Parts: sequence; structure tokens; C-alpha cells
Amino acid sequence: MGAGTAGLAALREVRDRTSDFVLINGGPYGTTCARVGCMPSKALIAAANAFHVRTKLDEFGIRGGDKLVADIPAVLHRIRSLRDHFVAGVLRATDDLGERSITGYARLDGPGRLIVGERVIRARQIILALGSSPIVPKPWRALGDRVLTSDTLFDEEDLPPRIGVIGLGPLGAEMAQALARLGLKVHGFDATEQVAGISDEKVSAAARNSFANEFAVHLGAQVELAELDDGVEIRWNDRSVIVDKIIVAVGRRPNLEGLGLETLGVPVDENGMPEVEPSTMRITGTPVLLAGDANGDRPLLHEGADEGHIAGLNATSNEPIRLSRRTPLNIVFCDPGIASVGQSAEDLDPETTLIGEASFASQGRARILQENRGLLRLYAARKEGRLLGAEMAAPAAEHIAHLLALAIGQKLTVHDLLRMPFYHPTLEEGLRTALRTIARQLPPCGLSDLARCGPLGVEALD
Amino acid sequence: MGAGTAGLAALREVRDRTSDFVLINGGPYGTTCARVGCMPSKALIAAANAFHVRTKLDEFGIRGGDKLVADIPAVLHRIRSLRDHFVAGVLRATDDLGERSITGYARLDGPGRLIVGERVIRARQIILALGSSPIVPKPWRALGDRVLTSDTLFDEEDLPPRIGVIGLGPLGAEMAQALARLGLKVHGFDATEQVAGISDEKVSAAARNSFANEFAVHLGAQVELAELDDGVEIRWNDRSVIVDKIIVAVGRRPNLEGLGLETLGVPVDENGMPEVEPSTMRITGTPVLLAGDANGDRPLLHEGADEGHIAGLNATSNEPIRLSRRTPLNIVFCDPGIASVGQSAEDLDPETTLIGEASFASQGRARILQENRGLLRLYAARKEGRLLGAEMAAPAAEHIAHLLALAIGQKLTVHDLLRMPFYHPTLEEGLRTALRTIARQLPPCGLSDLARCGPLGVEALD
Repeated sequence: MGAGTAGLAALREVRDRTSDFVLINGGPYGTTCARVGCMPSKALIAAANAFHVRTKLDEFGIRGGDKLVADIPAVLHRIRSLRDHFVAGVLRATDDLGERSITGYARLDGPGRLIVGERVIRARQIILALGSSPIVPKPWRALGDRVLTSDTLFDEEDLPPRIGVIGLGPLGAEMAQALARLGLKVHGFDATEQVAGISDEKVSAAARNSFANEFAVHLGAQVELAELDDGVEIRWNDRSVIVDKIIVAVGRRPNLEGLGLETLGVPVDENGMPEVEPSTMRITGTPVLLAGDANGDRPLLHEGADEGHIAGLNATSNEPIRLSRRTPLNIVFCDPGIASVGQSAEDLDPETTLIGEASFASQGRARILQENRGLLRLYAARKEGRLLGAEMAAPAAEHIAHLLALAIGQKLTVHDLLRMPFYHPTLEEGLRTALRTIARQLPPCGLSDLARCGPLGVEALD
Repeated sequence: MGAGTAGLAALREVRDRTSDFVLINGGPYGTTCARVGCMPSKALIAAANAFHVRTKLDEFGIRGGDKLVADIPAVLHRIRSLRDHFVAGVLRATDDLGERSITGYARLDGPGRLIVGERVIRARQIILALGSSPIVPKPWRALGDRVLTSDTLFDEEDLPPRIGVIGLGPLGAEMAQALARLGLKVHGFDATEQVAGISDEKVSAAARNSFANEFAVHLGAQVELAELDDGVEIRWNDRSVIVDKIIVAVGRRPNLEGLGLETLGVPVDENGMPEVEPSTMRITGTPVLLAGDANGDRPLLHEGADEGHIAGLNATSNEPIRLSRRTPLNIVFCDPGIASVGQSAEDLDPETTLIGEASFASQGRARILQENRGLLRLYAARKEGRLLGAEMAAPAAEHIAHLLALAIGQKLTVHDLLRMPFYHPTLEEGLRTALRTIARQLPPCGLSDLARCGPLGVEALD
């Protein structure tokens, strides 16, 4: 059930092993990512960043940046063209299913039974990959088309000049910055003091400061909305501002309502969520697997694809196939880029953790590129210098985070990383700065990064 | 001898261990990198790429890109400001040497003697870190200020509209593309069929094709120059073109002329170069160490710094300290980025090598960014899938190359890399495509990237 990223990944494994299956899909075809998620948001950000270059042109010696104009309807039109292209790519995956593809909302009727409209389907194994939907608090729904979510934003033909973004998690932060860079007046709000899902306070502050240069940032704000004739009034902490439209980005909820999960006869938690084994995706003690955003855990495309893959393998195997999950990696496509990888600051014990830090405020390449801002914080085990995690709001964060994800997954140490080449002048030299600040806190390890660390001191490498 | 990158790295080690040293420097202080190399060239490229964004603006929905103008004198002025900043940073490293810093050109007078002007200096160990200089063939020198090199380009107050770039190695390719992007009419020439130091023919073709969209590329061209009243005529293969200035980028020569290397009494090769031990930097059988660009090997900043470091350690140690070198990494800051890492295509035996490939022509993120062009080629050992090298002309090449340098240095396999997270949508997903093309050529390895490869098939990971 569900033809999104997780469902399609499951389908691939199921089709490889049996022809005795059906795919049931209720909502729109095409994945959340392609339709309303990663792809259109990245297209908006790409346009916004291209326009934002105008603020750097004079310093580079390029004149006329003040004559550039963002044609918002054209920006939105390109986003939809790209979206349609990416959605078409996804649709091809179910093109040839014929009668095995059923359109409709199904519900569970006990562990091995599904009801879709008039039809009853008996299934030995059921994969639920139903995705999630943006949360819009009930009172706000009355504001009609003044309230947008990521589901509706990219279908707008134009955008008004004043925008409130409620929720500055990854999605809200991306949208708030992009719309501000397109020249809209943006107010961003979050109930917490954190932004973009970053737990390290110093990194969060760096991100917050960079946002505050571009749009109004209101944190610790409990927001209320009131409709006016000419807009929406946002009230918080005795303050208020009037905007034309609101983008609600306060989170997503798994699409499990009315699904009949209760007919499985297993316990559920306070959110109505049953226990799911993360290495098999199986709802414990049932023939039902719950994968992708629908299980409320790791709502990211690459994790959803893994979960569908794991669920598909397990649905077609008599024995459980327990698979490991990847090193955690979260990227927020802001500028500077925001990323966390491995264990986050809040997961770590300060007693056993060393922290390395690099500011990009005067980093050479960052300065050349006019990207000289941001902070990278690295976490390593005090004992042997093994890398545990990192959080950053820094140039090239998406790339540095991938490198660190590899390093963390391979259980490499700070000294291992210091043996790699760092080309000059690159932003990766900033990473080296952070590695060195940790290396200085570790016991001495030979005379040189070029020597293997060992009891004999300097030692030739193979 | 020499206060550039290698000399300063050597100085750091020497100062840590003795106060009985002098630093002798003949040419300008400040490193080649900061004065005339990496830093000013990257500053030029940054301005050129900012101006080049105008060609993408309409597609993004941003209007007025045709009104942008490159103010070349202002572009060059910013480059010099940045250069002066970076040079000042380097100069601080020798500020406090007092009498231990000697200005002048020294020459060797036997293994333990140096002559600087009237002075004779006896030294138990001598480190030669004299750098290199651009090669300008003798007949071209007569063309006076119509001929520029990287030593002189950034001192120009303005640039004329027609430029010939002779030599499309890393430096020439960067300068030709940057000047073309700034709106100059550029003709680029190389005597070979390769560009930007890439040996893989398919990658070289991808780079060449992307260049050819921006400037005239003439390969296999044996060039002759003739001065005219209004410019310089470039003649090659029965063709000719007239330009205003020439940038000569045909290579650099170690600064060893008149140094008295012959007084060491050791054999030299046809270029006058003695044998240097790459793990110690010592000229075999002498108390002299030859480090950095001056030894003609790996003329890159990070390698020069390593060589100075190794030379400094060895000059102050009674026993040889043999150190390993880093995984080879070359980056050319063109767009798409060009990089080679590990073993290059020409080093590898096709019999024992598997090749993985990814085109970026329709890669998702690349398309969103309007960077959808380029090619990445990965090389791995046929036997076990261990990564050996890569060459690429691809978006984010400088970042992907660092990740691969880490992987190659750690002797990781294609399967190891496929276990890392690849976030969506990123350019690193292009790397994954190339990894998968190799994985398909290897013996099957379990059911899943998420399982450790082993004789039992799928196996849970730790």
C-alpha cells in the first residue's frame, strides 16, 4: 500500500521474487519527494540563490546587479516544469503493472485482510508505505488559501510580498530563506530556540545569525493567527505582524488515520503507532510491515527507500532479514548549508567526547567566494579519537557531511582523516582545521600526519 | 633556502628543534600560491563564475541578466586586494626571524657551503625550497608586455578584448575559461589532445566539450607567435588568429639555474635534476634536501607543504625519517570541476581494472542547478572492487574528489562506499551511479548494500 518512495522500493524487491502481489495507492501518484518535497523545494532554492548572487556582484567587480528582477510567476513555472519531469520519471515505475495496480484507499481488516472500496483482498504479507502529510492545526485551516503548506506552495501562480513561515525546521528554514532571497518580506517563527533541526547550540546560533541577515527570525514564539481583510495577523509574545500568506511547516504526520491499525490487535503508543522493528520494518508479531515516512522515523528520502527495500525483502522471505541502517545524515539546503551527521551534539556525553571546531569567517576559499561565514563542529571519542558525529552551518556542508558520513561509518579516527590530502584552496581545509583542534586534545601520535600512529612514534607507511 | 610554502613548512620543523639556522630568500617574499598562484587565480574564477550566472538567470525566472557588466579593472583590483591579504598572512611567518633571515640569492659551493653575495655560510644541512617559474619560450619573450604569465597577469590594470591562452593544462584551462566567462574573446591552445591534465579520454572529451561552449579550443596545435602593430598573430596548423595579449601557460621550471647543484658531485638527469628520495626529500648521498616545486615532482601546494615538512624533519634528525605521501589529488577549478584522484586512467592496467561511469547530463540535482553536464569515471580493482582512482569533469568535482581520496587512502571497496548514505537530491548521487556500475561487474555481494558482504549472503551488521 502506497506508491511513494518506500512503496516503490518495496515493489522492486517484491516483483523480483513473486508475481503474486498488488500495489494499492490512494492519493496522488508520484512520490512526496518529486511532487511536493525535495525536488520542487530545491528548484525554488536554486532560483533564489541565483538571484541572491546579485548581492555579491559589486564586490566581485560586476555591475548592474541592482537591475535584476525576480519574476516570481516564472520562477514558480520552472519549478512545476521540473516537478512534472521528475514525477513522470517516478510514474514509469508502475506503468506496466496493469491489474496489479489498484487505485483507492485501503484499510486493514485484521492481520491478513484489506478492504478497498467494495473489494476484499487477502494478503499473506502487507507493506504499509503510506507516507505522511503536513500538519496544519485545525483553527488555521479556516484561513483558507491564505495558508499554504509544502503540498500547495508550488502550485501557486504567484506569491504576495509578505510571507509568514511558521516552523523553522529543515523545510521551514529552506522556504523562509529562499523566499526572502527572492525579494519577499519574510517573517519566520519557531516555538523552540533551535533552527533547521540542529542540536548544537553554537551551530544553531551560526545558522540563526545567517538567517537573521536575510529575514526576520522569531524564536521561542507561540504563534496565533487571525484573519484580516488584507492579510493574516500573526501574534506572538505580545507582538504582531501582518502578512499576506502563511506557510505552515510545523511537521508532518504519518498517513495512518482510518487505516484500521487497531484491527491488528497489537499495542500502540500515544500517537497510535505500533512498535516497528527497525532492522526488518515489521510491526512486531504481525504479517504487516510499516516503511517510509508512515512509520514516523527518519522521514528522509534515502531512509524511506532503504525502509521500503528492507520491507520488500522481509515480505518475501520466510526468515527475517535483518539489515543495518546507514550512518545518520541530515542536510538542510540553506546557505550556508546546514547538516548533521552521525551522532548529534545532544546524543553525546560531554565527558567522553572531544569537540573540534572551525569557523569559516576568515577561511581562505570561503573569503574568495564571499561565503565566509558559518561554523563546523566535529565530535570524536576522547579515548581514541574516533569520529562520532558533526553538525555544521557552513559552506559546502552537503559535501563535507557526505565525507564525514563515510568516515563515521568506517569508524575512522581524526588521525585517519588528517592523513588524507586537503587540496588548496578548498572549503575542506576548514574541516581539517576542526580535525586539528581535536588532534591537539588527543595524546601525541607520532611526529607527523604522514606517519602511522604507533608505539614506536614515527613509522613508515605502506 | 626559499621562503615559499615548502620553505616555510621546513622552517616550522627546524625552529621547533634548533635555533642554529638561517633562512635565505632571493625572490619576492610571500608564496607562489598566495602571490601569483592558487589564491589570485581562484579570485579571478570566483568573479568570472558570478558573472557567468547571468547565462542561467532567464531559465530560473530572473530577468535583467543582460544588463550585467563585468568591470575588468574592478575585478582585477579585488584580486589584488585579496592577494595582498593572503600574502600578508604568509609574511608574518618570517617576521620575527631578525638576523636569521637573509635576503639574497645563494648558491651552493660544495655539500656544506653556501655563498650569498659576499657571505659564506657553512651548514650541516641545507634545504633547497626555491620554487619554480613559468616557462616562456625564448622567442616569445621579445613580444614584451603582450605576453603574460601567471606571474604578471594579476598585476594588469585592465585586460584587452582578445586573449590567446597557450597551454591548456590546469592553469591554462582555468584562466581561459575564467577570462571567457568575463566576456573576453579567448582562444586556447594545447600541443597535446588532452586538457587540464586529465588522462582519461572520455573525461578529457567531456572537459573539452564544456570548454568549447565558452571559448575556442585548439588542440594538437603547434603554435607560433608573430608581433603585429595591433596585436599578436597566433599561427598553428595552417590557421591563424590575431589577439591582443597572450597568456603563456606551458608549464613551470624548477628554480635551480645557477644554483651550483653540480658542486654536490652527484649525478643529475638530462634536466639537471639530481635524484631525490621521495620519502625523505634528501638528494641521495648529500646533506642537501630538495623540497617543493623546486624538485619538479607534485607541484601542488599541499604536496609542497608536506615536502617542506619532511625535509625539515630530516634536516634536524640524525636518522632518516621516512614518511609516506598522501593519496594523489589534483583539482582544476573549472566549471564543471575537473579532478583526478588516486591512480589515473593512464596508470591502470585495463585487464585488472573495472570502470564505473556516471554522466551528469540528466542527474537530478545537476539539472535543478543548471549544472547538468560532465562525466565521472571511477576505477576499481577487478579482484575485490577496491577503489583505485577516479577522473572527472563534473559538478562538485572538488568535493567528490576529496571523498574519494579518503576512500582510496583507506583502501575501501565499492561495496564499502555503497553502504554510506547518499542524501537526496545531491550531486553525490552521481558518484553512487558510478559505484553501482562497478558493483554490477563484481561478483554478487549479499542481497543488499545494507548487508555486510560475506560467504553467508545477507548478514546483519554491527
